[in-house]
Amino acid sequence: MSGRRSVFFVSDRTGITAESLGTTLLTQFPGIDFVKHTLPFIDSPEKADSARQEIDRAALADNARPLIISTLADPHVREVVAAANGILLDLFEAFVGRLQGEIGTPAHPAVGLSHGISNHLAYKHRMDAVNFSLSADDGAPVGNLGDADIILVGVSRSGKTPTCLYLAMQYGIRAANYPLTPEDFETLHLPKPLHAHRDKLFGLTIDPERLSQIRQERKPGSRYAALDNCRFEVSKAEKLFQVERIKSLDTTTKSVEEIATTMLHEMHLSDARHR
Amino acid sequence: MSGRRSVFFVSDRTGITAESLGTTLLTQFPGIDFVKHTLPFIDSPEKADSARQEIDRAALADNARPLIISTLADPHVREVVAAANGILLDLFEAFVGRLQGEIGTPAHPAVGLSHGISNHLAYKHRMDAVNFSLSADDGAPVGNLGDADIILVGVSRSGKTPTCLYLAMQYGIRAANYPLTPEDFETLHLPKPLHAHRDKLFGLTIDPERLSQIRQERKPGSRYAALDNCRFEVSKAEKLFQVERIKSLDTTTKSVEEIATTMLHEMHLSDARHR
Repeated sequence: MSGRRSVFFVSDRTGITAESLGTTLLTQFPGIDFVKHTLPFIDSPEKADSARQEIDRAALADNARPLIISTLADPHVREVVAAANGILLDLFEAFVGRLQGEIGTPAHPAVGLSHGISNHLAYKHRMDAVNFSLSADDGAPVGNLGDADIILVGVSRSGKTPTCLYLAMQYGIRAANYPLTPEDFETLHLPKPLHAHRDKLFGLTIDPERLSQIRQERKPGSRYAALDNCRFEVSKAEKLFQVERIKSLDTTTKSVEEIATTMLHEMHLSDARHR
Repeated sequence: MSGRRSVFFVSDRTGITAESLGTTLLTQFPGIDFVKHTLPFIDSPEKADSARQEIDRAALADNARPLIISTLADPHVREVVAAANGILLDLFEAFVGRLQGEIGTPAHPAVGLSHGISNHLAYKHRMDAVNFSLSADDGAPVGNLGDADIILVGVSRSGKTPTCLYLAMQYGIRAANYPLTPEDFETLHLPKPLHAHRDKLFGLTIDPERLSQIRQERKPGSRYAALDNCRFEVSKAEKLFQVERIKSLDTTTKSVEEIATTMLHEMHLSDARHR
């Protein structure tokens, strides 16, 4: 049966984990028109009851039981939501029991904390990294390259800025951003300010046609956005990465999440952030 | 049994969902020293076999079976990882079967796509929003308040900038940022540029002592950071929110994720982004 189906992401906190997993699961069923709702901060039986009523209304309207993808740590809250006319897929229910058995200690049913400030130091680290990336993006990047965990190198609009921000926000990585400009291409040598930081460099590249499209949106009809100029810049940048043996990644079809995780993995920064 | 236990977040994509759920689950077992590893892009039986070997080595070293929290859409890849000497908690395995039964169509075992560019338009929307927030934060915010989905109002360092970036990056919400300065407090009226946008305003407030700490880090010993000045600014800002009936939130103990989701919920923007 295809058709329309309501989906509720229900959480005692932000709902980010439930949404994220739920969205991935639903991509496996491409024929269905899923209508998504997020109900965050459902952390009391009273709020759970309002959620239950909202789900029941959707069940009536759709004439089909909604899917409920939830992260509800408190069994009492879960029970109330489970009474709704829907299919409850709760991540805690599914896994906490098995974990308890394996670990050999009972779970401490605190509300899930992965997106809260459960670890003040780690959170401060993330916010400091965001501020670092913002200031490093502010036109005077050279000064703080020494404080960076990683330095993204690439032509204008190859994806450096959003990737730096994502690395900072999600992982607390201090990411700086070094734009390659046409002057850098006169010789095929690494720009001087980067010499002392070779081991932190990571190159971003992009398909020249896509780059030209992106630049046209910002400066229509400019030399900056012209396809032949984009071809020139990208080929020089790629040549530079090759000559200087800088690891690099083509961002054309990749999301910031994919660029960031690939980079962490290739630079072996991936486990450092768990410490 | 407490002690040290390795945890592997294994994914055919970025690993963000597995990490996020896994971290939440593990907070339920506060006594254990979990050593976390992320293995992203495990999308072939060969890569799965390397992952299996890494997990097996950790099992030997720890003398305890590692936990494997995974999002592996391909059953063949999952099978290889499941052969490791660990406890596999796979989110797909746990839920896809039940979803298939309920929806009545077989899952299409494409690799999970929630953090890829599966939806080009939505991704472009997110990146445009990031650029919007960056330019709106660039000192000349007033010009594009009209294009904003939401306008965050608050004193300097109350959390506006990282929240705007998070709203943009995660949800594609165009969030602008209007700092309240001491001049705005001479009268208790809404600053002029905000008059036309009352329905988009959301106030951020913060404990004055915490604010003073944050400001001290940036400008030690300044009038800007002095506790009595922070008290003055915060009390005036809160008064303004009250007089002008602007919804507001105390950010002191909240993460950007919590601030952002609370705001979406209160401003009824929460479901708009699923459309």
